[in-house]
Amino acid sequence: MSNSAVDSSSDTPSAARTPQVVIDDAEIFAAHEGGKLSIDLREPLDTQRALSIAYTPGVAQVSRAIAADPALAAKYTWANRLVAVVSDGSAVLGLGDIGPSASLPVMEGKSALFKTFGGLDSIPIVLATKDPDEIIETLIRLRPTFGAVNLEDISAPRCFEIERRAIEALDCPVMHDDQHGTAIVVLGALLGAAKVLDRDMTTLKVVVSGAGAAGVACTNILLASGIRDITVLDSKGIVHSGRDDLNSFKAELAARTNPRALTGGVAEALDGADMFLGLSAGLVPEHLIATMAPCGIVFALSNPDPEIHPDAARKYASVVATGRSDFPNQINNVLAFPGVFRGALDAGARRITEAMKVAAAHAIFSVVGDDLAADHIVPSALDPRVGPAVAAAVAEASGV
Amino acid sequence: MSNSAVDSSSDTPSAARTPQVVIDDAEIFAAHEGGKLSIDLREPLDTQRALSIAYTPGVAQVSRAIAADPALAAKYTWANRLVAVVSDGSAVLGLGDIGPSASLPVMEGKSALFKTFGGLDSIPIVLATKDPDEIIETLIRLRPTFGAVNLEDISAPRCFEIERRAIEALDCPVMHDDQHGTAIVVLGALLGAAKVLDRDMTTLKVVVSGAGAAGVACTNILLASGIRDITVLDSKGIVHSGRDDLNSFKAELAARTNPRALTGGVAEALDGADMFLGLSAGLVPEHLIATMAPCGIVFALSNPDPEIHPDAARKYASVVATGRSDFPNQINNVLAFPGVFRGALDAGARRITEAMKVAAAHAIFSVVGDDLAADHIVPSALDPRVGPAVAAAVAEASGV
Repeated sequence: MSNSAVDSSSDTPSAARTPQVVIDDAEIFAAHEGGKLSIDLREPLDTQRALSIAYTPGVAQVSRAIAADPALAAKYTWANRLVAVVSDGSAVLGLGDIGPSASLPVMEGKSALFKTFGGLDSIPIVLATKDPDEIIETLIRLRPTFGAVNLEDISAPRCFEIERRAIEALDCPVMHDDQHGTAIVVLGALLGAAKVLDRDMTTLKVVVSGAGAAGVACTNILLASGIRDITVLDSKGIVHSGRDDLNSFKAELAARTNPRALTGGVAEALDGADMFLGLSAGLVPEHLIATMAPCGIVFALSNPDPEIHPDAARKYASVVATGRSDFPNQINNVLAFPGVFRGALDAGARRITEAMKVAAAHAIFSVVGDDLAADHIVPSALDPRVGPAVAAAVAEASGV
Repeated sequence: MSNSAVDSSSDTPSAARTPQVVIDDAEIFAAHEGGKLSIDLREPLDTQRALSIAYTPGVAQVSRAIAADPALAAKYTWANRLVAVVSDGSAVLGLGDIGPSASLPVMEGKSALFKTFGGLDSIPIVLATKDPDEIIETLIRLRPTFGAVNLEDISAPRCFEIERRAIEALDCPVMHDDQHGTAIVVLGALLGAAKVLDRDMTTLKVVVSGAGAAGVACTNILLASGIRDITVLDSKGIVHSGRDDLNSFKAELAARTNPRALTGGVAEALDGADMFLGLSAGLVPEHLIATMAPCGIVFALSNPDPEIHPDAARKYASVVATGRSDFPNQINNVLAFPGVFRGALDAGARRITEAMKVAAAHAIFSVVGDDLAADHIVPSALDPRVGPAVAAAVAEASGV
């Protein structure tokens, strides 16, 4: 196996690219041996007294109380602070449909992030089915086990149906992170970029490249934030109502975007645009970025290879962000999901509403504070202030 | 709420009853707030380098490797050391069908015991269905999530079918602890009792009171150990082939037990018996225990109220055991299940065979060693030597 992972030796943003530290495959595999998670006891069970409290006969009192009043389960079990990280392994990172077992290291990593940045316990649930009916049915049967569902790495367009149906079926917070986690952080970063550029965000001409999970969710949150001119690209070009190859989700997207009724491809979309938001693996040639309006914004979020190299983008755009930790302005979902779920569970919210997502984006933006600069529009992924700030904002916006 | 739990202030067995320490309900409920478990990281995620190893981009290498060779999931995820503690909440402790949410504190306690005594991680999975088809289907869908299944607190006779079908459907160790955990510890204790009494175990006349999960499993393991004269009692009396009210499991039991073709009730069964094994809530009057053969064995395992008070039983029987921690000879499943699953997973066994269960019982017996006495036929539930001894014996007996 070849060397693969790339790392920043510093957590401090800087305009210059931080040094790229090569991590050896051997180190990566060694760190995954036996998995990355552990179940621990909140109190040790090393005396007969402790055993009699935590197990029989003491536990019977707690079970009896919950049987009499099911609402007490939220207080006397871990379910109400437990997130199920659920995947069918159908769209894992950039690797595609590699199946549930191969997705498990990613879900374990997600659980590790939930704990580190949200203080939330979570369990990876990887499913040996990709059938939406079966996934929903399984979640309904598992419902008493957890307090919230983070859907993860489920391919589009199935992810839209599965999320919608899970939200309807379960009386607890449900969010597909690949959609809304990305959308929240993109909006948070755009708030920063717009302020740096002293631009009214709503007047921006935005090009969204990618009409999958993240593309749809980002388009929705940007529309909801008042941006009116959004052009979406998929692998066939601009998504517009004249196309006869759109699935129902893209057709719906076409109806709500592209007010100038553009047709064509990335060249037609980028000409004069203020912002490029890359959410697909499709590379964009530098000469097309050059046709954007001056002082623009480029978020090239594909990993590990951004749609355009940030050094090239910076020649034309005033604010450039990527998904990578070794360039400034890393757009990383970890800024959103731990705090979003923590806030929703803390508040006892049954849904994660659009208002809660927008509040999360504003909280991410607010943490940047006086450090805001063209090369620092979002906090570091490791900034411990972000999770609590997002959680507080989401809880408040829940209205519970 | 009233005071409820009973506790021993000492872990050292003694012939006299150890003092009964009352644990206040308030202390029990306080100890359950927020649940008893926590997810922790095996390595912290506090640097960009750690994040790049455990999550993107590093984790992609591990996922890619598992996608290419699914067997690597056992090495590079936690699944192979993760037990799913699965219940539908239909037969929880002595509380009956209190439902999945109310069973969750018990399952959390079970996970705590798995960790403390087996060093195994486990996750409670409580199901909002009691339908055997749906339970099996759900476990099949969840299969990539875990490495073994501990079925727990599922009512008889459904538990027999569910366990049998789960064993058939899943390529991993599955055990219903209420059946086999109890059976293993009973056999381990009986090995001790027979040695103390210098009796050939196989010649004992045994009465098993209770034909539920534990009764059936104990009868099976005792038959497999060579005991020929077993009489089983259910709530209607002696289980015999002449009865027309037996379900298929009890009819099968009738065919394999009761060689003297006894009919009647507990009085007829106990007359001249060498051993009484109580596994139901039915009390047995002292005057019937008095009809047993001299120098016998009484295991009165109902909790919190034994079928006969051990002080009364001791007037007639030479060895007396209960399920309680405040009397000598506590028969506690925790002596078996952590080591059984640990041994099966360590060995990579796909099944928990009868030979592995018998090996576990002998390992429990072996830990008692030179301390064997009428009031010390089993190790303490807290003895840290038991889990590793059982695990080693089970792994060896697996033949893997």
